Amino acid sequence: MRDVAIISTGMTPFGELWQSGLRDLFVQAAREALMAVGSPSVDAIYVGNMSGGQFVGQEHLGPLMADHLGLAGVPATRVESACASGGVALRCGFLDVAAGASDLVLVAGVEKMNDGADVTNVLASAADQETEVYHGITFPGLYAMIARAHMARYGTTEEDLAAVSVKNHRHGARNPKAQFRSEVTAEQVMTSSMVAEPLRLLHCSPVSDGAAVVLLCPLERAREFTDAPIRIRSSGLATAPMALADRADPTFLDAVSLAAGRAYKSGGVTPSDIQVAEVHDCFSIAELCVLEALCFTERGSAGELTRAGETALGGRIPINTSGGLKSKGHPVGATGVAQAIEIVEQLRGEAGERQVPDATIGLAQNMGGSGASSVVHIFERV
Amino acid sequence: MRDVAIISTGMTPFGELWQSGLRDLFVQAAREALMAVGSPSVDAIYVGNMSGGQFVGQEHLGPLMADHLGLAGVPATRVESACASGGVALRCGFLDVAAGASDLVLVAGVEKMNDGADVTNVLASAADQETEVYHGITFPGLYAMIARAHMARYGTTEEDLAAVSVKNHRHGARNPKAQFRSEVTAEQVMTSSMVAEPLRLLHCSPVSDGAAVVLLCPLERAREFTDAPIRIRSSGLATAPMALADRADPTFLDAVSLAAGRAYKSGGVTPSDIQVAEVHDCFSIAELCVLEALCFTERGSAGELTRAGETALGGRIPINTSGGLKSKGHPVGATGVAQAIEIVEQLRGEAGERQVPDATIGLAQNMGGSGASSVVHIFERV
Repeated sequence: MRDVAIISTGMTPFGELWQSGLRDLFVQAAREALMAVGSPSVDAIYVGNMSGGQFVGQEHLGPLMADHLGLAGVPATRVESACASGGVALRCGFLDVAAGASDLVLVAGVEKMNDGADVTNVLASAADQETEVYHGITFPGLYAMIARAHMARYGTTEEDLAAVSVKNHRHGARNPKAQFRSEVTAEQVMTSSMVAEPLRLLHCSPVSDGAAVVLLCPLERAREFTDAPIRIRSSGLATAPMALADRADPTFLDAVSLAAGRAYKSGGVTPSDIQVAEVHDCFSIAELCVLEALCFTERGSAGELTRAGETALGGRIPINTSGGLKSKGHPVGATGVAQAIEIVEQLRGEAGERQVPDATIGLAQNMGGSGASSVVHIFERV
Repeated sequence: MRDVAIISTGMTPFGELWQSGLRDLFVQAAREALMAVGSPSVDAIYVGNMSGGQFVGQEHLGPLMADHLGLAGVPATRVESACASGGVALRCGFLDVAAGASDLVLVAGVEKMNDGADVTNVLASAADQETEVYHGITFPGLYAMIARAHMARYGTTEEDLAAVSVKNHRHGARNPKAQFRSEVTAEQVMTSSMVAEPLRLLHCSPVSDGAAVVLLCPLERAREFTDAPIRIRSSGLATAPMALADRADPTFLDAVSLAAGRAYKSGGVTPSDIQVAEVHDCFSIAELCVLEALCFTERGSAGELTRAGETALGGRIPINTSGGLKSKGHPVGATGVAQAIEIVEQLRGEAGERQVPDATIGLAQNMGGSGASSVVHIFERV
């Protein structure tokens, strides 16, 4: 397999972008990435998108996006893995370049959720329709059950959960592209509206529109395009039982653990080598479970780690310096690519007020459903 | 890139399969393919599916299918390119093996259309929502306009169109897995109900349920699993303007021409080397346009070629020996993989009453929308 590098990025702000349609968001991010390297075209396009069909009545996003970018003709493929669609699209682009089939590949994540669709029910189609959704459960309920199980097993507290939101809003306040650039206090989190006990409004990521794009090429050609290529050191993908009730331990995210294990092994790194990470905090409890599955901390200890400030900027392993899904926003198909962009900016030393000093190795972890799919990428400055 | 082989296949019958859900169809086809080579697991799964979200309220088909096959943990990715989803999934699996990332890969196509959804409108989400669907057009209308343009430009007749349906039903009558195993006469076609002038009911592929699966591995390992591996000699993917009105010539399928050109070139073959082909006859006019874009015949001459019997079993280049989408059925996401299976059976000499004598090189062409995406694979007996 060939070594693969990210040579360029492009991203819309995340938020309620009423003035832009799905295709406009894609084109805005893609043009930024292409213009940064002065390339008029690419060899292939991968589009991560969860549910254009249900959100805005549009499937077939590969050719639609190629066409609206002025690149009709170029091979273009839409990839879906619910909220991990962007990360899985990145993996497909990585494999395409690694195989030697394409040299210059554009990987996009895009979602338009604020356009009239019944968002909670569309998102629920990422859970098991026959054994979960049919009975009325949606994602806030599924993650609330994970949270209750984590509290019961490990003594995790409402204060631990609130600490995730407080930290991510503090980070996001420094991110010009974040949907919510406002800090929140633990008290505000713990008195916000109850959504699904014990998860309150300020434990939940928002409904967002947005697009994110990275350009890939073989590492050996990367310096034709940029002075600061970021190598994708490895990619790991895994699945787990679809329904939460089918998992031996609902507090442990097997797909995350497996995907990370594959990425650590093929990248030849250990969890302690990672200096900065973006993880899938769709709900505050998710960040705690992910930190444990990534082996950044012992099982059951992620709440304590968070409250001690170890996952904040300045701590041992800064997590979600972008603001995470909670503060930056979560246009579901775009999230995985946006995570990669934050790590690229950190490794390039371009993260401004959010910069982790001297970061050379970073990780992005993206997740679908209640953890039935997860994809992990490890990046390094070269 | 490593050479890649198909080592095994599995397929449900196509039809109105009321007794089986989406996941059941997948598992039935996947188990057949796995049991044929005695393998309990695979390294990766790709699932081609157009619109589980809109048809049955289920996205996130990668982990769902892995889980229901008893393979939770295995990396699994859903790929979508409208009615070309199956062919594009095959390409993703091909690239995964070619890259050296995975050895044993399961590629599936699956769709459940007969489950209460508003099928014509769901399918329309593969057209351009803003410039086509919003104004009320659906696919029968788009292909009817292509047909009228082909008639006006080249003198193609209703008899030419009918000859496609008559041939494909004659072939499909010999296929035990076809949805319609009945022959039809030209008169029956030309007096069937009008759908979108000049296309009548017997010019249109049906609404179908079904699943198709192939297993891939590196060619150098293929004989560990089978005495009759079929090499995927090349894969080509391309796009074209999404909206029919944006194409310079609505009668010529640029994406098909580009995809085929890429497959011919990287496979080192010419159109005259192809001895049997499965092509995307969603409507009878589509088969004529595809034959011209594949360079099997001059532009404008496909109707005459068909009426002369050259595309029938026994003719110069037998097309859609399976019965094609028209007779075999068209569960949209499954079609591209089912096409590959027909070619595998032909090249293995296992096509029974449909056998093309001594076929060693075959082609499968799969298409999305009104031709905005197309994928072409070339296969050979080794």
